Amino acid sequence: MDIPYEQLKQTLEEILIAHGVPAENAAPAAKNYADNSLDGVYSHGVDRFPRTVDYLDRGLVDGAARPVLLSAFGAMERWDGRMGLGNVNAALMMGRAIALAGENGIGLVAIQNTNHWMRGGAFGWQAAEAGCIGICWTNTTPNAPAWGGTDNRIGNNPLIIAVPQSGGDHVVLDIAMTQFAYGKVAHAAMKGETLPVPGGYDAQGQLTRDPAAIRDGGRHLTIGYWKGSGLSILLDLAAAVLSGGNTVTDIGKKYKDEVGLSQLFIAIRPDKFQDPAVSDGAIARVVEDIKNSVPAGEGGISYPGERTLATRRRNLERGIPVLDEVWERIQGLR
Amino acid sequence: MDIPYEQLKQTLEEILIAHGVPAENAAPAAKNYADNSLDGVYSHGVDRFPRTVDYLDRGLVDGAARPVLLSAFGAMERWDGRMGLGNVNAALMMGRAIALAGENGIGLVAIQNTNHWMRGGAFGWQAAEAGCIGICWTNTTPNAPAWGGTDNRIGNNPLIIAVPQSGGDHVVLDIAMTQFAYGKVAHAAMKGETLPVPGGYDAQGQLTRDPAAIRDGGRHLTIGYWKGSGLSILLDLAAAVLSGGNTVTDIGKKYKDEVGLSQLFIAIRPDKFQDPAVSDGAIARVVEDIKNSVPAGEGGISYPGERTLATRRRNLERGIPVLDEVWERIQGLR
Repeated sequence: MDIPYEQLKQTLEEILIAHGVPAENAAPAAKNYADNSLDGVYSHGVDRFPRTVDYLDRGLVDGAARPVLLSAFGAMERWDGRMGLGNVNAALMMGRAIALAGENGIGLVAIQNTNHWMRGGAFGWQAAEAGCIGICWTNTTPNAPAWGGTDNRIGNNPLIIAVPQSGGDHVVLDIAMTQFAYGKVAHAAMKGETLPVPGGYDAQGQLTRDPAAIRDGGRHLTIGYWKGSGLSILLDLAAAVLSGGNTVTDIGKKYKDEVGLSQLFIAIRPDKFQDPAVSDGAIARVVEDIKNSVPAGEGGISYPGERTLATRRRNLERGIPVLDEVWERIQGLR
Repeated sequence: MDIPYEQLKQTLEEILIAHGVPAENAAPAAKNYADNSLDGVYSHGVDRFPRTVDYLDRGLVDGAARPVLLSAFGAMERWDGRMGLGNVNAALMMGRAIALAGENGIGLVAIQNTNHWMRGGAFGWQAAEAGCIGICWTNTTPNAPAWGGTDNRIGNNPLIIAVPQSGGDHVVLDIAMTQFAYGKVAHAAMKGETLPVPGGYDAQGQLTRDPAAIRDGGRHLTIGYWKGSGLSILLDLAAAVLSGGNTVTDIGKKYKDEVGLSQLFIAIRPDKFQDPAVSDGAIARVVEDIKNSVPAGEGGISYPGERTLATRRRNLERGIPVLDEVWERIQGLR
């Protein structure tokens, strides 16, 4: 079923309000789920929405909470997310980082006690729309092994970097530290598919592209083996140290669900140094050169963010494809 | 041959001075090569030193240049490296970022027209020694294919993140965006060794652990396949856009050698938010938890920076192991 963007956003907002979320939080939360769906990230848009309502109903997420400022110094602020809606908090925090960058060229905001931000890329796009380079990351529940271990002790801690182009074709990267998301491996296993590249180890400790072998007694793989494991640890430490909030270790010990997270938001204004045309030129040279690569196969070569923008334009025109089953579940939440 | 740290540093300094480098640059350059060797990174320490002298002699690097400030706004500065010694420039730039962080909590410095910084990790340790979280990265000459392509169009763009501990056991990550360094693959191929994990594709486009197959008509692999490719592109764009300097594309078109680079240095003061004991506690909890992982094999589980520190302590005590052949070459440069 294809749902127009505005209709989707309004439906989600009404449901959130019906579940006790005040309008000032329901509107930005609904916008984020609709935006993520518009950009083709259904897993953290419409598909995920029912779980958020469940978390609200169970009191794991406080739909009425607004973050409060804990401390500020120069170009930095530290906030308490008060276990509120993660995507609402994150948009507010990137907004503060953008404001601080307006005054100082760069702004950093750390937040503790927040919740799942859904799609981190949304806040990269937010920064880029404001003419900023945006860098942000979150920690998570322990969901991957540290390099050299077999049990889950580190997070997949998504990292986002966005560089703005004045025309709106921003370059936006959104990567988790595991090669494949849990949901993706589980989905591929159910469908009996093979992963395109090795995604983990089987129970015998052999690299494998078989998702069922990873799911059943195996383990997920961090990007670049020891490198992604190390990057995950550093992202976690930086977010927890600056926010004063939970580390991945703490989250695993305190909670059964992925709540009480620490996140970091950085915004930088390149136009404080030079005309945006200079930046645009640099980006254009790189994009053109990459696209001129000798192709390895059929797929074509895209820059980070390019496919998102194509999906967004198509979904804006034709409506957002929502699985009938998902749309029925959402309607049932009214 | 085991050379004491002070003797190594002084020898290198004397040679740089003999090759026309003024003392104010020769001293920090020699310290960087000696520090890298002390920490066990001989490839970007003693082993690399003769190449730097060659670059100085050929005029590719200007040993007398000092970076100049181009523009400043709030907590940010932009500098021109004037094609000077990369490790001298980088230490100065991280020093400026640390100073800006003292005033603003966070400081960002972008530099254009600089040269190879040798080991990026050195500047992460520098930030951590000053009580700062340090984040820095550099672009490089095109030395890896973009995801979906077979020819080298992107850089391996090393990324460094350091988080300080008050006791000095800082957590420092230093990772390039390719799974293995060129030198490492070439070295393994010469020795007929197999790589521990797939390091690239062979000429037929198959993933391989055979270094000779990667070297001979194959290609290097970015960490996490498309993820490391995307991260490489974003790191390049951010550094080039903020410095106003060369992109990886520009470097490949303008120069035969890896010169004229763009780099970014960020320093952040967590102690502006809370007592370092709070940070130390968070780090200790994470490190302890990771070390308690169920081990996958024999190797043991270490945190980023741990082995560096162990090597440093051993080399400080016993002297730095320098290959006789390397030491002879260095002596011959006097």
